[in-house]
Amino acid sequence: MVFEILARDPGCEARRGRLATGHGPIETPVFMPVGTQGSVKGLSPDELEALGARIILGNTYHLHMRPGAERIARLGGLHAFMHWPRSILTDSGGFQVFSLARINKIEEEGVVFQSHLDGSRHLLSPEIAVNIQMQLNSDIAMVFDECNSYPVSYAYAHESMQRSVRWAERSKAAHDLPAQALFGIVQGSVFLDLRKSCLDQLAAIGFDGYALGSLSVGEPKEEMLAVLETMTPLLPVSSPRYLMGVGTPEDIVEGVRLGVDMFDCVMPTRNARNGMLFTSRGSIQIKNSAYADDATPIETGCSCYTCQRFSRAYLRHLFMARELLAYRLNTLHNLHYYLNLMAAIRQAIEHGRFEAWRKAFYGERSRGAWG
Amino acid sequence: MVFEILARDPGCEARRGRLATGHGPIETPVFMPVGTQGSVKGLSPDELEALGARIILGNTYHLHMRPGAERIARLGGLHAFMHWPRSILTDSGGFQVFSLARINKIEEEGVVFQSHLDGSRHLLSPEIAVNIQMQLNSDIAMVFDECNSYPVSYAYAHESMQRSVRWAERSKAAHDLPAQALFGIVQGSVFLDLRKSCLDQLAAIGFDGYALGSLSVGEPKEEMLAVLETMTPLLPVSSPRYLMGVGTPEDIVEGVRLGVDMFDCVMPTRNARNGMLFTSRGSIQIKNSAYADDATPIETGCSCYTCQRFSRAYLRHLFMARELLAYRLNTLHNLHYYLNLMAAIRQAIEHGRFEAWRKAFYGERSRGAWG
Repeated sequence: MVFEILARDPGCEARRGRLATGHGPIETPVFMPVGTQGSVKGLSPDELEALGARIILGNTYHLHMRPGAERIARLGGLHAFMHWPRSILTDSGGFQVFSLARINKIEEEGVVFQSHLDGSRHLLSPEIAVNIQMQLNSDIAMVFDECNSYPVSYAYAHESMQRSVRWAERSKAAHDLPAQALFGIVQGSVFLDLRKSCLDQLAAIGFDGYALGSLSVGEPKEEMLAVLETMTPLLPVSSPRYLMGVGTPEDIVEGVRLGVDMFDCVMPTRNARNGMLFTSRGSIQIKNSAYADDATPIETGCSCYTCQRFSRAYLRHLFMARELLAYRLNTLHNLHYYLNLMAAIRQAIEHGRFEAWRKAFYGERSRGAWG
Repeated sequence: MVFEILARDPGCEARRGRLATGHGPIETPVFMPVGTQGSVKGLSPDELEALGARIILGNTYHLHMRPGAERIARLGGLHAFMHWPRSILTDSGGFQVFSLARINKIEEEGVVFQSHLDGSRHLLSPEIAVNIQMQLNSDIAMVFDECNSYPVSYAYAHESMQRSVRWAERSKAAHDLPAQALFGIVQGSVFLDLRKSCLDQLAAIGFDGYALGSLSVGEPKEEMLAVLETMTPLLPVSSPRYLMGVGTPEDIVEGVRLGVDMFDCVMPTRNARNGMLFTSRGSIQIKNSAYADDATPIETGCSCYTCQRFSRAYLRHLFMARELLAYRLNTLHNLHYYLNLMAAIRQAIEHGRFEAWRKAFYGERSRGAWG
């Protein structure tokens, strides 16, 4: 994996880069749609590619539970399995183990948990998580870590961070797939000294990229921003910087301003399935009865497949009738919104006018989606 | 609407025709995918068109209940509402009223029923059903009729058939949209004299096409075939003949042999959502564990979107994980199977070798999907 920085914005930390994996170049800052179980819910690989997605995220925990990494390996790896020719980043399973499964115990070796599907007992350790990701043959793998919820005590955050560092070291030792990059994950909850200590130790081990984990897990927005503002500029400048699981369009704009290169979040896809649609002036809820006779598209001027063809009235009807097409058309629009946002951000940085663009972005939103 | 017969098979009643509506030509024999609520479940209009669908079915009952025909009319009619540029046939609502809603009473005026959605009371009469279809602005409308379940007594079938004839007459009187064709529906359950009497009366009124209704409603296959064999050749030879709600690939082949031009059925779409996939050698159930590691497509050699890209193993995984993409990919395959079957049938009739083709069709199926 090669990462180059093509341009820097003069007014802030924002950077415009390019990440090259074995599955093609990825222009950064980039948003990665979430393909939890080997599918970005409702969309075909062709649609993802047409939307401009160049890297998606796969969830190690989910794929390990079903259909199993060995099976995917036998079938040619995750790219072949899901027929996705572009890049894939896999998480380490840590986040899902701590949020979805029933934890039995966390010990130095790893985490013993029960599957959310059938209650079966499993161990996930740094070696196992890395091995699964090598079997999936993703382009970018993540170290196995403990994801902290919010709030946690300083003492627990400290102990957990130190264990995550030891797990990161073991993850690197177990990693043996030259074509696959391995990223470290900075932990330490909202405690800046713990975050800094974690980063120092990870940088000493050496990774292909660095992520900020355990953010957007319930902490107040200001606490998240404080961590972001302090930590992002400290992340190794020549490596890609990844803000995990974040976030709203505003979160992404702020992350970019502080120098983040990569984002992922279920928000555009999950909200789409709940009828919440993004526009440049904020979001709308399609089931609102105000749209029952509305012949206009979700957003006038939007070039997405959905807005080019369908009215709010039709989308509302599909959603109320729980038609499968509703989830897909909504997802197409929301991902188009996110990926288009990233394209606009990249262009603004290229032209050295990210701050002006950012001001216009907030100006549009302040008008309100109902205006 | 213009209907011309382009070729007849020398060995049977099969005919190759062309139906021209305001939304383009339709090659017959034709299969019409079912778009119940303004959407063929899971598919976009572009996908339907790419599959070769040239006419789909919309359900008057469903669209009347939600979002309402007046609303669809305000939004430009059903074609514009769902962004479907090809032809649409709407049923009269009769079938759903008798199968889905709670009937309060059947009287000469029409049927009083309660919505399956919210229990609200509604009246559907010939005039109302035709008016709804004119608001939807479909290319082909159907008369309002009573759909008989199976079995019914001769006396009831007789009384019901005579009422359906009177309703057909009122449907025609209420119909006032020259660009929209209106088809009559032959009733009479499995009683051949009632069917013949019904047809005679409908032909005397005069319709643009004639349908056989209340078949495939639970009667033994032989009874259905007996009605088909007797009635199809009696249907006016120069008008399109439509066998409603039928059926399996075998049913369609037999219908064509007896001279039917048009078919519709939820089978390819509904079965797809239940994991049942059609192949030339019979159907398979994708959730079968035998497919967990199967790297081959649903049917080797199939040119559909799904088979060109995805393995049975991946489709099984999507289905087990209840991923939205499963329903769509399965539906694409099954509709491709049906529409491809119709294309093969049309070609066979054109070449005057339908009987030989039919023999080969059954020969393939007798090998079994597991062979």
